Amino acid sequence: METLHLSKAFTLIEPGPVILVTTHDGHKPNVMTITWTMVMDFAATFAITTGPWNHSYTALRDMKECVISIPTVDLIDTVIGVGTCSGKDTDKFGKFDLTPVKAKHVQAPLIKECLANIECRVVDIIEPHNIIVLSGVAAYFDSTRTEQRTLHAVGDGTFIVDGDILDRKTMMQSKLPAGL
Amino acid sequence: METLHLSKAFTLIEPGPVILVTTHDGHKPNVMTITWTMVMDFAATFAITTGPWNHSYTALRDMKECVISIPTVDLIDTVIGVGTCSGKDTDKFGKFDLTPVKAKHVQAPLIKECLANIECRVVDIIEPHNIIVLSGVAAYFDSTRTEQRTLHAVGDGTFIVDGDILDRKTMMQSKLPAGL
Repeated sequence: METLHLSKAFTLIEPGPVILVTTHDGHKPNVMTITWTMVMDFAATFAITTGPWNHSYTALRDMKECVISIPTVDLIDTVIGVGTCSGKDTDKFGKFDLTPVKAKHVQAPLIKECLANIECRVVDIIEPHNIIVLSGVAAYFDSTRTEQRTLHAVGDGTFIVDGDILDRKTMMQSKLPAGL
Repeated sequence: METLHLSKAFTLIEPGPVILVTTHDGHKPNVMTITWTMVMDFAATFAITTGPWNHSYTALRDMKECVISIPTVDLIDTVIGVGTCSGKDTDKFGKFDLTPVKAKHVQAPLIKECLANIECRVVDIIEPHNIIVLSGVAAYFDSTRTEQRTLHAVGDGTFIVDGDILDRKTMMQSKLPAGL
């Protein structure tokens, strides 16, 4: 996994892939599947919607950090497995053969098997709406990975896989931040 | 366009497609392209990130309503065109041959050419974060449309088109809301 400049981290989330979010509660790591995410600016600010009904929420709220990991289509059954059991009674890294990799700035681990990872700090929790605002502090991308297609949850139990890529860079020029 | 039950409206946004958002300022309609969106619950609550730098923001804030329209891949150049000019000096419906259709509950129009439309009310504006919280009040889907593949903005001027659909309904059963 090589370093990805933080100014490009939003391009991992903007297409709307299913993500994994790792946390560490001071004793052990955990991971959850999240599809309710949003980019909030070009400088690596993200929102996720979650709340006390998720076991990971306590670690997010108390430790104020996490890692966003981007899985690809070959991990679909892992993504669903992670999302349909609880860290309350399950060691998900062990159960799903995910390899935790030490992060630089946060205690939550990166996931080796994922296409990309973003170390994040929790900068705000908007309680009435269950929105957690995250600020990316470091990002990584595994360009050696052959499978780079991500997954988009529909919400009805089906998932859309990335298809064709269309280039409209020329038309979009006026709207792109510098360096992209 | 037939009615879509509101309990299914979140499945239009959860995969993370580029959307169009129409508004009406009391005098005329306008439309913007938005990629920073998030589902917030199963009962048709959505977040979008936007602010005073967008001409549509004033109408959203003052009229407290809008329509989310979901374009498909055949509309990519319209989507980019809408996103790279301003309603301040452009009649975007005219310029891009979009047909406004009268909505039931809001003054903002549906867009005939889109795959789906969701009439929304603005229920909160979280100012420090530029997050607008929307509650869907009616939804529509055009099932006669041959092209149903949506677009996912990467943010660097490229767009990912919907590819294969994978069915994991059985594995996901415990997490799906009733009726899906």
